[in-house]
Amino acid sequence: MKVLVINAGSSSIKYQLYDMPRAEVLAKGFVERIGEPTSRLSHTCAGNSTTLEEAVPSHETAMELILKVLVKPGEGAVADLSEIGAVGHRVVHGGEEFTGSVKIDDRVLDSIERFAELAPLHNPHNLVGIRAAMRKLPGTAQVACFDTAFHTSIPKVAHMYALPFELYERHRVRRYGFHGTSHRYVARRAAAMIGRDKHDLNAITCHLGNGCSVAAVRKGRSVDTSMGFTPLEGLVMGTRAGDFDPAILFYLADKGYDLATLNGLCNKKSGLLGISGVSNDMRTLQKRAEEGNDRAALAIEIFCYRVRKYVGAYSAVLDGVDAVVFTGGIGENSSLVRELVCRDMTHLGIALDPKANAEAGGRESAVTVPDSRVQVLVIPTNEEQAIARDAFELVGGNGEPGTV
Amino acid sequence: MKVLVINAGSSSIKYQLYDMPRAEVLAKGFVERIGEPTSRLSHTCAGNSTTLEEAVPSHETAMELILKVLVKPGEGAVADLSEIGAVGHRVVHGGEEFTGSVKIDDRVLDSIERFAELAPLHNPHNLVGIRAAMRKLPGTAQVACFDTAFHTSIPKVAHMYALPFELYERHRVRRYGFHGTSHRYVARRAAAMIGRDKHDLNAITCHLGNGCSVAAVRKGRSVDTSMGFTPLEGLVMGTRAGDFDPAILFYLADKGYDLATLNGLCNKKSGLLGISGVSNDMRTLQKRAEEGNDRAALAIEIFCYRVRKYVGAYSAVLDGVDAVVFTGGIGENSSLVRELVCRDMTHLGIALDPKANAEAGGRESAVTVPDSRVQVLVIPTNEEQAIARDAFELVGGNGEPGTV
Repeated sequence: MKVLVINAGSSSIKYQLYDMPRAEVLAKGFVERIGEPTSRLSHTCAGNSTTLEEAVPSHETAMELILKVLVKPGEGAVADLSEIGAVGHRVVHGGEEFTGSVKIDDRVLDSIERFAELAPLHNPHNLVGIRAAMRKLPGTAQVACFDTAFHTSIPKVAHMYALPFELYERHRVRRYGFHGTSHRYVARRAAAMIGRDKHDLNAITCHLGNGCSVAAVRKGRSVDTSMGFTPLEGLVMGTRAGDFDPAILFYLADKGYDLATLNGLCNKKSGLLGISGVSNDMRTLQKRAEEGNDRAALAIEIFCYRVRKYVGAYSAVLDGVDAVVFTGGIGENSSLVRELVCRDMTHLGIALDPKANAEAGGRESAVTVPDSRVQVLVIPTNEEQAIARDAFELVGGNGEPGTV
Repeated sequence: MKVLVINAGSSSIKYQLYDMPRAEVLAKGFVERIGEPTSRLSHTCAGNSTTLEEAVPSHETAMELILKVLVKPGEGAVADLSEIGAVGHRVVHGGEEFTGSVKIDDRVLDSIERFAELAPLHNPHNLVGIRAAMRKLPGTAQVACFDTAFHTSIPKVAHMYALPFELYERHRVRRYGFHGTSHRYVARRAAAMIGRDKHDLNAITCHLGNGCSVAAVRKGRSVDTSMGFTPLEGLVMGTRAGDFDPAILFYLADKGYDLATLNGLCNKKSGLLGISGVSNDMRTLQKRAEEGNDRAALAIEIFCYRVRKYVGAYSAVLDGVDAVVFTGGIGENSSLVRELVCRDMTHLGIALDPKANAEAGGRESAVTVPDSRVQVLVIPTNEEQAIARDAFELVGGNGEPGTV
């Protein structure tokens, strides 16, 4: 069965076509700058890449274009759209309702719409993508896979803030967490790598990409994570501040900053970019730091220090960690970051193997010495594959449903 | 030599008269409700308590009253004010300037005034107390002891937020930390208790009182702490929220909450009170939780969970902890809190002794089993004594100056 995976953003749609259950990618690509005159589609299939520059006024047209190229003789991957047995959609926010992936019906659509209030930058676009796919492939099962689902197992003690309880009751203010599909995927892979049942794994999974989050995984289930009510909380990210004293906002408001400015400042001008003043990109910062730029070096140091603190905090939460996992663009590719996070952690049972660490990247590997009490693993994440599997299983494929 | 210790708040002055270097308290008391018609002084000396109910219109009058009662035959502790060789003042904010206690001169007064912007609820009152004492005891050395001083050793990697660097340069936005005098005092006592040089101690000190903060102490110096730019950040407190996703403020502002309301809500209606809806007092909450109140139980659980996460985080920062110290009203007196923080922490080297823990309180004691890799200590804090020592040493008494 073929499964199409869709990730719809504000002005883009990314897609991958999977052959399941082999989990082979038959084709993938993205439409970018939807709604702009310069929009275009980039498509890869069987090693051949094509680019189509044409006006794509809406997500609907984008979806049409994607389906057209998927069946195009020579470039496409299927002879007929009827081969597509399911479409899996990435949806950012599933609130407290969705503890796993689900087939989409009217009730699900309503809920995704309702949770748009909690994820105004994401859910509305995810929804537009779903609706376009439903219209273009009306007979095909549509599945929603939520970034929050894996974290719905987080207990009250970790998901409630110490704010007035009414804010939770009235406005649903609590920790939701994000990147759940990635944390789940790498936790499952980690269990396989170290030969454990996935329900018997205690792990700390560090997703370090454009957005960054850490999760504490006990017996295969998320029990805490660093992102909170929104993706601002937690680790330092490319342009997001992560944790800081919220009273700083009151202080700056007193100094004349308005809230919209402060919001932009915390989300778009902070993080690696804010500290360094140079770049939001770890590779650029490593280069600049090597050239002697102190603030680039400081940004890297702070980034790693904050990951380190979460690894320690979740070690205390779990009391017994089998593995610390690094994934995401930075986690998979920066041996420096992994080294700065893990060095001098013998007290917590981590003994990095410098050579293995330097050589890791691009594939699953262990980077600790053999007798390290806690194993440190590098695992390339694959959210698309996880979504494809969930969709496949929910339409009657083999395996477990896509829940924790 | 006698040393008078002064802690001046918005409408109160607390004082203790010490005989140094013995560090014996000769007299102590407080004037409360300064400026209100119902103001009064409570004074204890040699086991006798007296109360004086009279109008105390200003901090100046309060200081006069305190000095009068200190020399009062029968109730007082000194025959003449000239016996007082130094006055030590608690000052909350010393910015980045004061790395230890200092004798007060005009330059120091200017700085304390300047830092009032960073501690508008505290420094101005501290300053009023200092000025009143200077006028009433013009020939006596006045010493300032800063809550922030112990934390000035925190390195950039831990004191810089991942916010735009300009906010630090222009508005001095960074982590300062508070409760420094308490963290320093208990770290010194911990070193003495476990027979280590104070410069050779790695400890995590948990000050759990009305306000709560944790500090990571490496080789006797503070290298990180949970309170930040303001005392809002970090642990759950009586009515303060501690850490939460700052973007919640943007969300609630969108819902119509104004900033003044949000400020009050985070600082005065959150924490133990906010979660439980019952009380900001740990003793009351423990009683209610025992009676079956779920939200009181949740408040205690969250409080302890958050301490636990900091203990873990700072274990990772220090990589090797000699002692975890509990102090402050809750830390010294709640065996339940200590137990909930420390249980299932064998992975981090902590093995609590339940009997010793149940019996601790009111005096210095170890509450771990003898072979626990990390010792857990209960140490009653004594900020006044630390201030008295600093003042004594700065006016030429024996010992080291009051710095880290």
